[in-house]
Amino acid sequence: MNYIAVDWGTAHFRALSVRDGKVAASVEDHCGVGRCERAALPAILRQQLQRLEHGWDPQLPVMLCGMVGSNIGIADAGYLALPLDFSELLTRGQALPGILSNPLTLRPGICDRRVNEICRGEEMQLAGGLTLSDAQVFAVVGNHSKWMRVDRPRQRVASLTTLMTGELYQLALNHSVVGKGLPPQTASPAAFLAGVEVAQDVYRGSTTLISELFRCRGRYVLGVLDPASASSWLSGLLMGHEVLSGHPQTESVCFSGSATLLPLYRQVCEALDLPCTTLEAESALLAGLNAVFAEQV
Amino acid sequence: MNYIAVDWGTAHFRALSVRDGKVAASVEDHCGVGRCERAALPAILRQQLQRLEHGWDPQLPVMLCGMVGSNIGIADAGYLALPLDFSELLTRGQALPGILSNPLTLRPGICDRRVNEICRGEEMQLAGGLTLSDAQVFAVVGNHSKWMRVDRPRQRVASLTTLMTGELYQLALNHSVVGKGLPPQTASPAAFLAGVEVAQDVYRGSTTLISELFRCRGRYVLGVLDPASASSWLSGLLMGHEVLSGHPQTESVCFSGSATLLPLYRQVCEALDLPCTTLEAESALLAGLNAVFAEQV
Repeated sequence: MNYIAVDWGTAHFRALSVRDGKVAASVEDHCGVGRCERAALPAILRQQLQRLEHGWDPQLPVMLCGMVGSNIGIADAGYLALPLDFSELLTRGQALPGILSNPLTLRPGICDRRVNEICRGEEMQLAGGLTLSDAQVFAVVGNHSKWMRVDRPRQRVASLTTLMTGELYQLALNHSVVGKGLPPQTASPAAFLAGVEVAQDVYRGSTTLISELFRCRGRYVLGVLDPASASSWLSGLLMGHEVLSGHPQTESVCFSGSATLLPLYRQVCEALDLPCTTLEAESALLAGLNAVFAEQV
Repeated sequence: MNYIAVDWGTAHFRALSVRDGKVAASVEDHCGVGRCERAALPAILRQQLQRLEHGWDPQLPVMLCGMVGSNIGIADAGYLALPLDFSELLTRGQALPGILSNPLTLRPGICDRRVNEICRGEEMQLAGGLTLSDAQVFAVVGNHSKWMRVDRPRQRVASLTTLMTGELYQLALNHSVVGKGLPPQTASPAAFLAGVEVAQDVYRGSTTLISELFRCRGRYVLGVLDPASASSWLSGLLMGHEVLSGHPQTESVCFSGSATLLPLYRQVCEALDLPCTTLEAESALLAGLNAVFAEQV
């Protein structure tokens, strides 16, 4: 399996040159589609692929996934609706002529019209997770964590739920009164676990997430929380809330995400006594891409 | 009752010159304490009061309330802890010599150490509400809505809960992917009520606020919601969530807030069939200030 895959999100660009199913070269940049002129995207793609591999094989298939296929991307590739057969999850999407000499395709996102959910990019990690794990519930965690249930007997993606954990964390810390005037932050496992505990109070209904978000400030103003640990507490609260909202409890969840986030989600699950496994985003993505190209060679 | 009261928050400054319990003059400006150098605050105060009333009576008592009494203000006046006697709620706080020739005082905030809650400024509207309404639950709504229960027989403020409704609305709309790329917004009563309905689903536990916040985007991307109505939907969701979280259902709530917000909260309560009354923030504040100065002349 030889191909080039481009994971092009709102904030970041990443291209992988894959040979025999392994990453032979990769480039990344901050030229996310949300940061560039739409009209400039084809030229940016050509430049970046030049950096990836000078004078590449013009036969190599190239696939674009992520927000580049949205209404702010190179073209809108739409969404495949749930429930979705695994075979459809593994599509390369629509051909995009006139941009490269190589055969270029643009992957659609997935959506669940029953609950107004959309997802674009993370479904590739799910595609990989399906080959690397036997879980039935996957959580691709990060800025917008995507929780997805699959139905193995029917070979379908059954449901999709987004929890804006990462983005809410950044908003609270960098744009709201909660993070205002805080000193430089240091990671505190104790504050993190204290946040997870408060998430349990929210889950039990004795308080609300929106109140506790504000009380993060109350905590350090009143001297209950070290101001340098506010971000750890906040991350415990939000990740705890996410896991308690999404985890089915009765079965294990396979988490996929960055090497920084996975240990934190593991800690949350341990603290809550909930079963989980983890997969690095990179491995899950590559396995997903390989599955797509194995399917369609 | 003749006095000058200054309501000095993070973003705004407002000074009222009150004669015989009525506003004789007022000035406002954007020089909130969060926007100014701490060291410059005394000089800003003198300038603004000069604008309010040229050559004012040097006997007039001047009281500062709001964030100006916090750790980012002119001095930290601390917090009075709940449960709090009404008489304490009506204190002018600590004397602040050396800044004006007039007798100047700085009001503390209020807090509830049992649940890590803090409030600075809004308690003046509560003080006024107590004289204008016989409610036992007050909601001073806005950026950080403050829900407070009072115990009339014991003449005490019993509890305090903050819901970051206004700030979360601004964050979602202006700083997150939810509001990204939206066209100019127009108020839509139907979208507002649709948001309130989803808040009920959250209240019943069939979905979470954090997922529905993201699904606002899903709704307009998938064509279920007019993109120009996203802000109305979002405000219905967040205000609905606030009211459902705070309203005791069995008794009426007295809302205090701006003339723009009150009709919206009234609509939420009507849609949810919950009893309420409303008080304009301006009237509530003035009644609160009058109560403070009546108490201490």
